[in-house]
Amino acid sequence: MKSSGLSWRIVLVRPRNPLNVGAAARAMANFGFRDLVVVAPHPPVWQEARSAVGAEHVLTSARAVSNLQEAVGEATLVIGTTSGSRRNLDRELLPLADLPAWLKRCAAAGSRAALLFGSEKTGLANEELSYCHALVRISTSPRCPSMNLGQAVAVCCYELARARVVSARPPAARAHLSEPANVHSLEHLFARTVRVLDHTGYLKPKARQATLIKLRRLLLDLRLTNNEVRILGGILAQIEWKLENAEQKKE
Amino acid sequence: MKSSGLSWRIVLVRPRNPLNVGAAARAMANFGFRDLVVVAPHPPVWQEARSAVGAEHVLTSARAVSNLQEAVGEATLVIGTTSGSRRNLDRELLPLADLPAWLKRCAAAGSRAALLFGSEKTGLANEELSYCHALVRISTSPRCPSMNLGQAVAVCCYELARARVVSARPPAARAHLSEPANVHSLEHLFARTVRVLDHTGYLKPKARQATLIKLRRLLLDLRLTNNEVRILGGILAQIEWKLENAEQKKE
Repeated sequence: MKSSGLSWRIVLVRPRNPLNVGAAARAMANFGFRDLVVVAPHPPVWQEARSAVGAEHVLTSARAVSNLQEAVGEATLVIGTTSGSRRNLDRELLPLADLPAWLKRCAAAGSRAALLFGSEKTGLANEELSYCHALVRISTSPRCPSMNLGQAVAVCCYELARARVVSARPPAARAHLSEPANVHSLEHLFARTVRVLDHTGYLKPKARQATLIKLRRLLLDLRLTNNEVRILGGILAQIEWKLENAEQKKE
Repeated sequence: MKSSGLSWRIVLVRPRNPLNVGAAARAMANFGFRDLVVVAPHPPVWQEARSAVGAEHVLTSARAVSNLQEAVGEATLVIGTTSGSRRNLDRELLPLADLPAWLKRCAAAGSRAALLFGSEKTGLANEELSYCHALVRISTSPRCPSMNLGQAVAVCCYELARARVVSARPPAARAHLSEPANVHSLEHLFARTVRVLDHTGYLKPKARQATLIKLRRLLLDLRLTNNEVRILGGILAQIEWKLENAEQKKE
């Protein structure tokens, strides 16, 4: 599968330093990226970043959203970045230099891809990582592994531009049946799954959060097409109806 | 010729923003580079950069020198960075991604290499470029070609570390006859050449500066060994002696 037509959204999750937001936007502009979304920035950080003198077009047209799901809803491929210091990430962890080859192998042409960067201090949280199809790590020195956010964005954009897995323009929104489902439809399917599991008592309160994260990852790994999401959604709706109906009969 | 043993010095020429000096040092540390030299920084810039909270080891051990020659004197290979916007650079101009292959082809193992970054506003001056064996350009978008200095350093360090053309430790100083001469010995030879040319009236006052830049480039391109520098130095000394002697006889 060719991946030269990937369109990229850069997503900064809870950035704390306005200079880093500005630096990320500049690096994006340098390498031909246009679409920046910032998740839940502190309001003064966002204000200061946007009002910076000489702010890039990328920054003035950037959007702030309140949660990650809103930022990646339209994406059909989500890549997270991590310093790789945490264990049990339970996702494929690629050195950045290997990402282009992985994309050529695994990403459908014309995919809407999102590249996620966590906050300067904490990186991406486990729940945020559960939205990612794969994780990339910039191979840094063990003595000084943690990169500045703006520089990490620059290096990632450089690598993607270097491998030419960037499309100049975002593709028109499509939802052909045979194409990969986006995060929004998967979340819809996921919410339905959770309702069914709750109904059946599958989700134990103590392990609920951890189980949901595992299940979301499992769902992502299936790489469902829109058609498959439609079929599975129908099956789940039927199960839901049956469960509710059975309860009503019992009452 | 293997180039995996190259040792690198990063040289920032007249940087204006202390944050960029700090960012360059951090990126160097991230990718295992240690040797930072700053040429002619404004004293407050240098003070502020060095006193930054959490300054990298790279920065605390960095040196400030007054001119470029001092910074690259020991180097046997000098690479300049440029936005590529100026014409007539008269040097091989490589996309950064092609630099590792060029180094494998053209750099002797164990070379002491220097990578030069010009000031944020003006880049490297023509005279500074004349010290460079080759120039590299980070391939950026024509709409926003100019990179932030700290990010440019990060991207270059990433590319060199990615291709593993970095040595963990600087090599011991060597001056074997068959090894490439460093900039310091070439400058010595160059100064002697200039004296001879002045003596003979070859250098016309109006074109003097431009001619000297061309001659320095020519001298670099010869890739002289220490032995060749010694022989040429001897020949020039003899010519100098003869010229002075002839003048004295005339007097």
